[in-house]
Amino acid sequence: MIQEPTDAIIRVLVSCICGSDLWPYRGHDSIPEGGRPMGHEAVGVVEEVGPAVRTLKPGDVVLMPFAISDGTCELCQEGLTTACVHLNFFGSPGIGGAQAEAVRIPYADGTLYKVPVRETDRELLSHLLTLTDVMGTGHHAAVTARVAPRKTVAVIGDGAVGLCGVLAARRLGAERIILLGHHPDRLDLGRTFGATDVVTERGEAAVERVLELTKGLGAHSVLECVGTQEAVEMAVETVRPGGAIGRVGVPHHAGIPAAPTFFKNAVVAGGPAPTRAYMPELVPDVLEGRIQPGRVFDLTLPLDQVAEGYRAMDERRAIKVLLEP
Amino acid sequence: MIQEPTDAIIRVLVSCICGSDLWPYRGHDSIPEGGRPMGHEAVGVVEEVGPAVRTLKPGDVVLMPFAISDGTCELCQEGLTTACVHLNFFGSPGIGGAQAEAVRIPYADGTLYKVPVRETDRELLSHLLTLTDVMGTGHHAAVTARVAPRKTVAVIGDGAVGLCGVLAARRLGAERIILLGHHPDRLDLGRTFGATDVVTERGEAAVERVLELTKGLGAHSVLECVGTQEAVEMAVETVRPGGAIGRVGVPHHAGIPAAPTFFKNAVVAGGPAPTRAYMPELVPDVLEGRIQPGRVFDLTLPLDQVAEGYRAMDERRAIKVLLEP
Repeated sequence: MIQEPTDAIIRVLVSCICGSDLWPYRGHDSIPEGGRPMGHEAVGVVEEVGPAVRTLKPGDVVLMPFAISDGTCELCQEGLTTACVHLNFFGSPGIGGAQAEAVRIPYADGTLYKVPVRETDRELLSHLLTLTDVMGTGHHAAVTARVAPRKTVAVIGDGAVGLCGVLAARRLGAERIILLGHHPDRLDLGRTFGATDVVTERGEAAVERVLELTKGLGAHSVLECVGTQEAVEMAVETVRPGGAIGRVGVPHHAGIPAAPTFFKNAVVAGGPAPTRAYMPELVPDVLEGRIQPGRVFDLTLPLDQVAEGYRAMDERRAIKVLLEP
Repeated sequence: MIQEPTDAIIRVLVSCICGSDLWPYRGHDSIPEGGRPMGHEAVGVVEEVGPAVRTLKPGDVVLMPFAISDGTCELCQEGLTTACVHLNFFGSPGIGGAQAEAVRIPYADGTLYKVPVRETDRELLSHLLTLTDVMGTGHHAAVTARVAPRKTVAVIGDGAVGLCGVLAARRLGAERIILLGHHPDRLDLGRTFGATDVVTERGEAAVERVLELTKGLGAHSVLECVGTQEAVEMAVETVRPGGAIGRVGVPHHAGIPAAPTFFKNAVVAGGPAPTRAYMPELVPDVLEGRIQPGRVFDLTLPLDQVAEGYRAMDERRAIKVLLEP
């Protein structure tokens, strides 16, 4: 139901389960009394718009990024929509979730991004859906880690974001892409996405392997796609002096080691990806078939079987679960 | 005495005491049994060169940066001389110090930088001396904090490095430069160097003042020129979302707060400044009088009164002490 004149209501065509949804699922993040709506990625059709909405009309197919942004403030204008003065997140108190049949979208003109596709084109919808979070986030990791042609890249984490990070690094012209992970099916997809090397060791052995592969110097760009202390330390140990770490795993740890990053002159960057701001750059690549990030979805379930989707991801039987209302 | 064919011996014309020399002086850094040589900044005259030295000859006036670098390895070629595969620091075990009459210079071709000045031009020598550490370090803070025209800059610390950071930020075209410190004489020099605002509050009050001066958003670039936990936290709190922190204070703390930097998409960069690599860019500005960083020296002493120099800096009676053998 429209609450503010800048709201829109969308009917969800496809949504999905995010790796970050597993934090509360597993009890690592607290859940408010009375529960909370879940899901922050969707492609939908505009059903209704408030009187102040200017750029959208019922029937438009739109991408719903995980963050709400007004599109007009100074930070949105600079492209950092995840620092919007009206920033909010789907699934927060008072804001709906996308694992649903419909969602109310605050600041619809700023938040949503219209795409020229038919709602029946399910394959294209699945690729576009990744631009609302995981592919935009992998791209953000690559951008903030300064991936560029002739660079060597290490990607820590073979979840959907890490895999999209591989795809983003290849898209940005990286020469060598080393994917660190432990799941054969995911590593296979990583190779398809552009990984030139995979490292399956853990801890110090993994660090040593990356150093071996990089003449002992480390990677110019490290994409930290996990968010644990162990992953951050691995990123710090595998980054080349003067290189950059793009962090996109929500930090579930206290600090970035001060001295090793300092003495290496390593750049530590990243944060919540402004996926809305990246859509004008990434959508054409999806529409024209140059990238197929929707291949991270390896299980599709009807919305009413969402619980099975969480189980499948928790037990790592699925990389990422697509939901169809 | 020449030990390696790539060594040179320089006679020191001017050297100085660094703020970082106060860490061991105050007992915060341990001192090896038997003591250690001190001083890592000098302008000198080449007295003798080893047989493998190709670019220097006796009589050349040279800058001696705080770090030893071979000038030929991959990292030196990339401009990160402080990550040289042969990196060492003056004052380390087996390496001499510049608070002396002469110093042995390893990898002299890489380490030293020849300047076209006469050894009698004392004023010019004092400005050039800052390029061996404090001015090169202030410049590094500004570069890694991405200072550029139209940007607002906050400089944390009114020591010699912070003051040089102000000068570097102005040189790089910053629109507004906010200097945080507590010493009226230093803040006055900071204004001369280009600070448009000074903030003398401490802790949270200082953070609030910077936010007030920046429409509540914070500074695009923060130069962290202290190295304490408090200074790092202040940097994190005053940086604008999407902005960058250039750290050049040697970290005397454990970690960079993970969540606040992440959720702001702040870039944390910096480290030991490759002052040798910056010399080709900065020396002409000194020679042609466009910058006068040597104004940070407010006390000159003969070398045999070096102890008084440490006392003066420890008691903050002097910003930075110049020593003449």
